[in-house]
Amino acid sequence: MLRAMRTQVGIIGAGPAGLLLSHLLHLRGISSVVLERHSRAYVERRVRAGVLEQGTVDTLTAAGVAGRLRREGLPHRGIELRYGGAGHRIAFEELVPGRTITVYGQQEVVKDLIAARLADGGDIRFEVDDVVPHAAGTDRPYLTFGGERLDCDFIAGCDGFHGVSRPSIPAGVLTEYEREYPFAWLGILARVAPSADELIYARTDRGFALHSMRSPQVSRFYLQVAPDEDVAAWPDERIWAELKARLETVPGFELTTGEIMEKAVTPMRSFVAEPMQYGRLFLAGDAAHIVPPTGAKGLNLAVADVRVLTAALAEWYATGSREALDGYSRACLKRVWRAQHFSWWMTTLLHTFEEEDAYGRRLQLSYLDYVTSSPAAATTLAENYVGLPYD
Amino acid sequence: MLRAMRTQVGIIGAGPAGLLLSHLLHLRGISSVVLERHSRAYVERRVRAGVLEQGTVDTLTAAGVAGRLRREGLPHRGIELRYGGAGHRIAFEELVPGRTITVYGQQEVVKDLIAARLADGGDIRFEVDDVVPHAAGTDRPYLTFGGERLDCDFIAGCDGFHGVSRPSIPAGVLTEYEREYPFAWLGILARVAPSADELIYARTDRGFALHSMRSPQVSRFYLQVAPDEDVAAWPDERIWAELKARLETVPGFELTTGEIMEKAVTPMRSFVAEPMQYGRLFLAGDAAHIVPPTGAKGLNLAVADVRVLTAALAEWYATGSREALDGYSRACLKRVWRAQHFSWWMTTLLHTFEEEDAYGRRLQLSYLDYVTSSPAAATTLAENYVGLPYD
Repeated sequence: MLRAMRTQVGIIGAGPAGLLLSHLLHLRGISSVVLERHSRAYVERRVRAGVLEQGTVDTLTAAGVAGRLRREGLPHRGIELRYGGAGHRIAFEELVPGRTITVYGQQEVVKDLIAARLADGGDIRFEVDDVVPHAAGTDRPYLTFGGERLDCDFIAGCDGFHGVSRPSIPAGVLTEYEREYPFAWLGILARVAPSADELIYARTDRGFALHSMRSPQVSRFYLQVAPDEDVAAWPDERIWAELKARLETVPGFELTTGEIMEKAVTPMRSFVAEPMQYGRLFLAGDAAHIVPPTGAKGLNLAVADVRVLTAALAEWYATGSREALDGYSRACLKRVWRAQHFSWWMTTLLHTFEEEDAYGRRLQLSYLDYVTSSPAAATTLAENYVGLPYD
Repeated sequence: MLRAMRTQVGIIGAGPAGLLLSHLLHLRGISSVVLERHSRAYVERRVRAGVLEQGTVDTLTAAGVAGRLRREGLPHRGIELRYGGAGHRIAFEELVPGRTITVYGQQEVVKDLIAARLADGGDIRFEVDDVVPHAAGTDRPYLTFGGERLDCDFIAGCDGFHGVSRPSIPAGVLTEYEREYPFAWLGILARVAPSADELIYARTDRGFALHSMRSPQVSRFYLQVAPDEDVAAWPDERIWAELKARLETVPGFELTTGEIMEKAVTPMRSFVAEPMQYGRLFLAGDAAHIVPPTGAKGLNLAVADVRVLTAALAEWYATGSREALDGYSRACLKRVWRAQHFSWWMTTLLHTFEEEDAYGRRLQLSYLDYVTSSPAAATTLAENYVGLPYD
């Protein structure tokens, strides 16, 4: 016999999507329970994205959870594209005045949201086993987990690409769109001061490299590697040598080296499931779509989804109308596909493709020359990077 | 024994590149002879491109050969992208104020240039056989043709992709970059009034179609077809039916049908040879590079090459310095690769690719939505289409 509870919205996953949804619903007076299979310590330490769009910062600020973000986040007003022996700055302040990005680790957002939920008496269950959504196609959906049952009005699947929510939807409901890339990223977290004030996206014949940061004391780097790369093949000395080879390509730039705290290989994949909903189950964030990290869109898309879902749920609770809920997927997908395209575009613009012929490599360099010299083309990069306005 | 003549610049090919070069050199007081294997009637009737960039019109105007172009050319201040059941105008007057395109057939430009050269006593030899460039690597190059010999200071290879100039360059000098597309264009010339005031670029699941025009009485259409398409498979009724299926996709649009005067299949290819010169032989226009016609760049690039070559030759004759001549290829190639990229971009944005997966088709539609909704993205199309400024 299962122990039964009830809430209005059952949320699977305590990543940024699930936690922000729980918080925004709370602000609208709607109850939720968040079920997370990992520990609190794990989700608070999991290193992921670190670039917040203007709209994401605005959303967190309006929701009252941006105090530390405002203090510790690093606002950036540009990025550098580095190739052909020169750096070219994409200057947000000129191209998209008033809009910036903020460098602030995803796990810091998660910490802030957990703290806010707990301070508000929110119900987050960590380390729960075997979460399963049930009866999403009926008016009485529920979740089971570790011998318990959670009855709810709606289920929010915020449990990422590998979560249980999407696979729980009956076969034939979803159409899945997918692309894999012939490379992966080796992500490196190092206890060294950033070697530049802004992010550097470097295209070299050796492959792509990204210079990023998490704080004035912690740098984040990425190297394009083979899709099946073994992280064991990358001792620290090799990592620094390769980062130098790909980043020290302009006069006067010197990479600060030091202790590497973490390294891991991330596959690069594009994926969209449509629609992002089934009956009373709504997918948000990575559960519905993933992008290669080049455009820094994953976390920001999750926040956009959650905004739409919160408004639709609030409308249902206020008026009983399912109209906004029925339109949830359609409302999200325009932005999702824009981000899919932008992420693909940034990825193909900056990575080397082994199968690419000489003509394709020259096209890529011509495109980079164009993006870094035409204000209109630079604006297409900038406006997508800082995030297009919400509808 | 060859009959020998002498000129300053021997020009192979009486297309727009060769004729304009001869005319511009004449304006600088430099003599030339143009050798063309076809008849005057043939080159004056050969149907090719029909969209002139702002800079091309400005160049022809400054050269005093734009009288009829100014009277009969059709200035256009926008184009339409049609897909998904709606038309979206790319409004040049808003996006690139003061810059337009002019619809005027390439063969009309050829007629005007031939008339101007002959009025100025220019030497154009039509129907000459077996033109061969010689000794381009020496200081005494010459051309032979039909039993005659033309000594010259320089040779200009303006004889198109299939001409003799490029293959005459010794092996190992040129690097060739090439891409073929998995489709061709069926070009149609019809004695019917255009069905719209501006060009319509239509993307449909049946393939791409272009509605264009040559005059208020003559329409020009293109249909994406298989690369090996047999024109015999396209009787007039099939052409009109397919044009209707691809163009009558928005409410209220009706295609005017009528007599088809000409139809032909054009392969789609991208090609660049680098450098565009060898010793005293300089390639210009299609002899050095070709683009798929989607971006309407072929003729305009030839004009840009000829501008650079004229200035370089004039500098040599005025000062004896080879500096500008030595830099000819480098000066041209930046624009050439920009046009290569733009032509590839327009082509991939609007055509259907059989090998494309569902993800790719969605990316394409997302990109079209972006190009037609973001002023910055629309400007990237507009500024390339009307032509970027000359350096």
